[in-house]
Amino acid sequence: MQLQQVEALKSTAGRFDAINTEVAEAVDKVNDALYWGALNYFRDNGFAWMDVPTMTKITGACENVDTLYSLDHFGKCAYLAQTGQLYLEAKIPRHKKIWTVITSSRAEAGVDSRHLNQFQLLEFEHQGDFESLLANIEGLLKAMFASAICRSGAEIESLGRSMRELSTYLMRFNRITYSDAIRMFEGTPLEIQWGSDLKHGHELFLVDKLGGRPTFITHYPKAIKFFNMRQNRENPLVVNSADLVLPFSGEAVGSAEREDDFPLLYDRLLKSPMFKILSKRGVAISEFEDYLNLVSENPVLHSGCGVGFSRVSQSVLGFSDIRQATNYPLNAEALY
Amino acid sequence: MQLQQVEALKSTAGRFDAINTEVAEAVDKVNDALYWGALNYFRDNGFAWMDVPTMTKITGACENVDTLYSLDHFGKCAYLAQTGQLYLEAKIPRHKKIWTVITSSRAEAGVDSRHLNQFQLLEFEHQGDFESLLANIEGLLKAMFASAICRSGAEIESLGRSMRELSTYLMRFNRITYSDAIRMFEGTPLEIQWGSDLKHGHELFLVDKLGGRPTFITHYPKAIKFFNMRQNRENPLVVNSADLVLPFSGEAVGSAEREDDFPLLYDRLLKSPMFKILSKRGVAISEFEDYLNLVSENPVLHSGCGVGFSRVSQSVLGFSDIRQATNYPLNAEALY
Repeated sequence: MQLQQVEALKSTAGRFDAINTEVAEAVDKVNDALYWGALNYFRDNGFAWMDVPTMTKITGACENVDTLYSLDHFGKCAYLAQTGQLYLEAKIPRHKKIWTVITSSRAEAGVDSRHLNQFQLLEFEHQGDFESLLANIEGLLKAMFASAICRSGAEIESLGRSMRELSTYLMRFNRITYSDAIRMFEGTPLEIQWGSDLKHGHELFLVDKLGGRPTFITHYPKAIKFFNMRQNRENPLVVNSADLVLPFSGEAVGSAEREDDFPLLYDRLLKSPMFKILSKRGVAISEFEDYLNLVSENPVLHSGCGVGFSRVSQSVLGFSDIRQATNYPLNAEALY
Repeated sequence: MQLQQVEALKSTAGRFDAINTEVAEAVDKVNDALYWGALNYFRDNGFAWMDVPTMTKITGACENVDTLYSLDHFGKCAYLAQTGQLYLEAKIPRHKKIWTVITSSRAEAGVDSRHLNQFQLLEFEHQGDFESLLANIEGLLKAMFASAICRSGAEIESLGRSMRELSTYLMRFNRITYSDAIRMFEGTPLEIQWGSDLKHGHELFLVDKLGGRPTFITHYPKAIKFFNMRQNRENPLVVNSADLVLPFSGEAVGSAEREDDFPLLYDRLLKSPMFKILSKRGVAISEFEDYLNLVSENPVLHSGCGVGFSRVSQSVLGFSDIRQATNYPLNAEALY
C-alpha cells in the first residue's frame, strides 16, 4: 500500500490522485520542514529577503542558453529566468547579505528521474570570499537537514529512509577539488579528461567513495563555467567555484565567488561559449551593460549560490526519482 | 536628494542606478520586514508551505484570461500562472492549512502606477468558512504591518510616512458589503449600478470615507467573480467573497469561500464568462477535469486568498506608485 503510493509519485500521470495520499502528505511535511530550515538560517544570519523578476532579458539565464523558455513581452523577446543571480548581485553594493527564492525554469527536453522543468531555487549573495561562501552554504544546508530531522523525523522514517545515514549529513561536509576528483576516476570506467564536465555518475561515485556525505567539488575548469565565476588568482585555469553534491540527487548547489576585476570579467564574457552562442543569435554585449556597469562602478568582492530545493528534498527523502519530492513535477510530458 | 531618490523609483528607466540608493535600501528593509511578518504568521498558525507550478494549463489563470502570457512547452500551449489557487486547493482534502508564494504574471498592456506584469503573490487555502477566512486574512495582514512597524519603523518614518496613520492599520479592519458600498456612491460622481465592478477610484473613496483603514468589501455579484467562489446560500446573486482594500494601493487581497456543491460548481463553470471566452478559443471543459474531480470526490468546505505583496508594501510605504515598492517593476515598457 505504502510502497504503491511511493511508486505512484514517480509518474506525472494521474498526479492529482498520487498527491492525495498518506505518503504525499509525509513528503509535504518534510518539504515544509526543509523550507523552514532555510528561512530560519537566512533570518538568523542577517540575510535580507528581496524579490527578483522571473521574466527577464537574456541575462536571467546564467546556466544554459539552450534550455531557455522564451515568450513575447509586448514585442520584446523575454525569457523565463533560470536564476535571479545577477538581479541579486545588482543589490550587493548596499547589502552585505541577501536572499531570494524563485521558480527556476529550464526547458530540458529529456524526461528522466533527475530533471524538472521548473523547481524552487533558493539563492543568496553576500559580500565576502570563497571560504565564507562555503561556510554559509554548509550552514544553510545543515539548517535544512536539521530542521527536517527534528520536525519531520517520523515522516522520514515512515518512508523507509535510514536516519543513521541521514544524520551523517550533519557532519562536516567533504571537500575535494575538481582536479583531485578527476584523479579518483583514473582506472575506472568513469575515467575522463581534465576539462570535461562531471556527469551524474561521477557525482554519485565521488559521494559514495567519500562516505555517502554531502561533498563540495571545488575549483572547476574556467572554460566550462559561467563567465562571472572568479578566476583563481594562483591557477588561472580554474575558478573559485563549488558544487555541492548529495547522495541520491547529485548536484544540489552551484556556487562561486564572482569576478570583481572588470577587464578580466569583460574579456571572459566576450570569450564565453554562452556569449558566442548568443552572439550568433544576434544578442549584443549591450544586453549585459547594466551588469557590467555595476561591476566596473562598484567592485565589491562577493559570492553566491543557488540551491535546488527538490534536489535537497530528494536526497533527504532517499528517493531515486526527483518527481517523488514535489507535488507538481514539470517535464516535457507533463503540464498541470 | 532623498526626494529625488524617491521620485527616481517611479521610473523603470535607469533602474539599476535608482535601486542603488539609501531610499531603495530603506524600501528593501521594509519589504524584508513585511515578508517576515507573513512568514511568521503562517508558521505560528499552522500553515504548511508547498510549492506550485507557475507554468500551467489554462487552469493556472484564475483572474483574467485576457492577460495571460502564453508560451510553448514542448508542443503544448502553456501559460504563466496568475495564481496557484487551484493547485493549493487540490491538496486541501489532506491539509487543514497551506500556503505558498508565487511570482504571478499578468500581461497588462497599460503602463500605470498601479499594475505590475509580475509580482509576488502570497496565497493560502484552509479548511473552513468565510468568517475564518476573514480572520486569517486580517491576522496575516496585521502580522505584516506589525512586523514592518517594529522592524523597520525608522526606515518608514525616514521616507516621510506618518506612523500615526500607519498605526491605524492595526485596528479592527472595516467591513462593508458590495451592496452597501454601491449605496455610498449614490449621488457622487462615482455612482455606478449594482453589478458593475468597482474601480480604483471607488476603492480609494471607500477607504477614505471609512477612516483611511484597511477595508473588506464583501459579497460581490456572482456574475463578475470567479466561477468557484461559493454562492451565498441566502442570496444567490452574490458570492462569499472579500476583497481587502488599502489606502494608496487599493485592492491588495482577493479571497473567497470555494464552491463545494459540485452540480452548482459545474454549472457555474460552464456559464462563466471565462469559460465562454475559452470555449471560443477551443479550450474544452476537460482542461478543468482534475479540479472538478477533486471537488466531486472530496467536497471539503474551504476558503483562500491571494495577497499582492507590492500592493501591501506600497500602502505601508505610503507611495503613490507601485513601482516604488519593488526593485524590478515589470511593465509593458520594461524588461531587465
